[in-house]
Amino acid sequence: MDSNKIRVGLVGFGTVGAGVADLLLNGAETIRAKTSLDIELATVVDLDTTSRRPVKLPAGMLTDDIGTLVNDETIDIGVELIGGTTVAKDIQLKMLAAGKDVVTANKALLARHGAELYAAARKAHKCIAFEASCAGGIPIVLAIRTGLAANRIDAIYGILNGTCNYILTNMTQNNLDFAVALSQAQEKGYAEADPTLDINGADSAHKLAILTGLAFACEIKLEDISIEGIEGVSIDDIRNGQEMGYVLKLLAIGERDAEGKISLRVHPSFLHSDNPLARVDGPFNAISVFAHAVGHTMYCGRGAGMMPTASAVVAVSIMSATGNSKRVFDNLALLPRAQTEPLINDISSLNSRFYIRLMAKDQPGVFAAYGRILGDHGISISGALQHEGSGPDNTVPVVITTYATKQKNMTAALDELARLDAVGGKPVCIRIVDIPEDRD
Amino acid sequence: MDSNKIRVGLVGFGTVGAGVADLLLNGAETIRAKTSLDIELATVVDLDTTSRRPVKLPAGMLTDDIGTLVNDETIDIGVELIGGTTVAKDIQLKMLAAGKDVVTANKALLARHGAELYAAARKAHKCIAFEASCAGGIPIVLAIRTGLAANRIDAIYGILNGTCNYILTNMTQNNLDFAVALSQAQEKGYAEADPTLDINGADSAHKLAILTGLAFACEIKLEDISIEGIEGVSIDDIRNGQEMGYVLKLLAIGERDAEGKISLRVHPSFLHSDNPLARVDGPFNAISVFAHAVGHTMYCGRGAGMMPTASAVVAVSIMSATGNSKRVFDNLALLPRAQTEPLINDISSLNSRFYIRLMAKDQPGVFAAYGRILGDHGISISGALQHEGSGPDNTVPVVITTYATKQKNMTAALDELARLDAVGGKPVCIRIVDIPEDRD
Repeated sequence: MDSNKIRVGLVGFGTVGAGVADLLLNGAETIRAKTSLDIELATVVDLDTTSRRPVKLPAGMLTDDIGTLVNDETIDIGVELIGGTTVAKDIQLKMLAAGKDVVTANKALLARHGAELYAAARKAHKCIAFEASCAGGIPIVLAIRTGLAANRIDAIYGILNGTCNYILTNMTQNNLDFAVALSQAQEKGYAEADPTLDINGADSAHKLAILTGLAFACEIKLEDISIEGIEGVSIDDIRNGQEMGYVLKLLAIGERDAEGKISLRVHPSFLHSDNPLARVDGPFNAISVFAHAVGHTMYCGRGAGMMPTASAVVAVSIMSATGNSKRVFDNLALLPRAQTEPLINDISSLNSRFYIRLMAKDQPGVFAAYGRILGDHGISISGALQHEGSGPDNTVPVVITTYATKQKNMTAALDELARLDAVGGKPVCIRIVDIPEDRD
Repeated sequence: MDSNKIRVGLVGFGTVGAGVADLLLNGAETIRAKTSLDIELATVVDLDTTSRRPVKLPAGMLTDDIGTLVNDETIDIGVELIGGTTVAKDIQLKMLAAGKDVVTANKALLARHGAELYAAARKAHKCIAFEASCAGGIPIVLAIRTGLAANRIDAIYGILNGTCNYILTNMTQNNLDFAVALSQAQEKGYAEADPTLDINGADSAHKLAILTGLAFACEIKLEDISIEGIEGVSIDDIRNGQEMGYVLKLLAIGERDAEGKISLRVHPSFLHSDNPLARVDGPFNAISVFAHAVGHTMYCGRGAGMMPTASAVVAVSIMSATGNSKRVFDNLALLPRAQTEPLINDISSLNSRFYIRLMAKDQPGVFAAYGRILGDHGISISGALQHEGSGPDNTVPVVITTYATKQKNMTAALDELARLDAVGGKPVCIRIVDIPEDRD
């Protein structure tokens, strides 16, 4: 990789793969003009060599044999875009062993087997460049690990999954139920046929693990993250929240407290409607970062899709080609697991405000019973909303917002509330996230 | 610079210099944890060696002799923070000749003498790292030249001057005249005693020249940029604009059209109130970038101030220490001036919407006369606003917004309007900037 000519091999010719091939085949001039680099697509490997794709490859470039890439010594960089955590891992290890830097957008693999893969890369004196694995086209990994390198990062609040944000925006703006909003997202290509990993919060958690590992300079495991998805979200709660000045988002949150203890969570969150993140709509992603020197910075853009992700993958390939990724990778020091473990706060110790909705039976003394139970657990009410009229089964929705309290107090109160005769069904509980303001 | 130990010399111990010293002296642990680098402050040079600063240096570290830095072979990086375009240039050249990489936030110097300094750096096989020169703590240079390197960038819209944004926000939110808002900004430390370079738009233009040079990969001169400041902005026009759905910002704009021709301008701009940039308030900066693959990305944060700028300066020093800045600098290809010149569009060919305010004498036939003059120049009216009642000298303000028209048509129409007997004073004209939307 001493000259300015760089050859790239691509594994996975799906949507993002086709975008990467398009940028490398048709954007070479743009890249050369900006970087002096001659970056060249050498080969594309995919089991499916016959389906039509939106980009046309030169004859003979597409193969189903990974050996064509691994054994070609003129290929400097291997881009893995097949996804999954088994075959993809094997292919990354093979490419590293063959002396190629690896570029990947596979956050599930890195979140699960990052430590093993990074060790293999170091052993091979190569690097794994994963800037494309979080938030698609937004250069957030670059910002955190390079742009803010002089900062102690205190908190990250991210909308990291475009599918969930598209569904929640659609529900909010068009008054739709979750199921309808999901099926519309699928029709538009914003949700996959099996949307589980998106809507259950796992994808956001994978990205949060990567971002907070870099931000807090320590090894993060998926198990450290408390995860709730948006499957259970009701349009009624979105409406009630709106009436009280909140917007519902799926937030991925990493916070470090004054003692250095770290809290990590992904869950539906009510944000004040005037917070900038509350205005990030549709398939867009955004990340607010709070750091000790720079204060609040925010990054916004498309978090997924063919060309935005391809943009990130090619940018990372360029960084690898110039040696920048390798240097950053070599200098990346993460606090080892043994020192990280005691740093992680359990969700039960979280201090938060809450939104609660109970379906109350229309009978005397119900409000008093609620108030007593909350009071018994030391929880103060900050707002309440009850519309006149009855709902199903002669119940009425009663909405309460609270001042900050411990999660364990709220969990105990909710258990007790659910056992009340006067309450129908399980109470709904959504956390209200008060993102700090950076003002003068 | 082979080991992980890096020694930094600092020239300029003012506000930002003190911030840099603070981060290097007190943040070494954070930096080491994230990067494995031992970055060490070696010496601080300033003519004033006696004034108290907010950070305490080790004894003997502060000197007024630049030779202490230049002649110390153990110093790898020289940080120039004295500002200005004469002594600063001389010092940068000396440091380069002595074999040190240069880190600087001096946008005025780079905008004016960039070509000469870059040539000197290349001759010395060193680099000038200027990421800190634009938008303070927001890693926007990094995003444009690395994160979006695979993209053809089509447009940049930036709020690049915190002083102006603070003043305009203060006028808008508190209904203040320009002079009052400016003096409050000075009291709060957001405007200098001589605020000329901020409020006349020159500072924004310096930053625009740097950002668009990188974004469009060509050499940009200050003379290519049409510049108007905020000195003449009236609270009346801010109010009128608000009533019509607009927010006034000082925008720095770089656009490239379908033929590749580039337009560069800094001027007060009415933005739709629902555009994300319209909501960036106070001393914050923000940049919206439109690129062909990634679509719209936006970056927001503090654009000035002691610690945000220091954060950027230290981040760039780290990038220099790892060799990343040098590699990017070496590979940075800018289209030479000979090829750039014909690419620059003159402001007269700008196609824009406009807001016009005339002080009309309260007499019959005035509106008809306006309409005729605008119509004669092919300009269509899109909105109008006239409140009942009279203003000074028996005139009433008449506000008109137009559909898109050529700047030269508008300039001609304004000349004619100003000569009308029925118009008192010079008409006010503010461009309405319709930032494209990236939606599905």
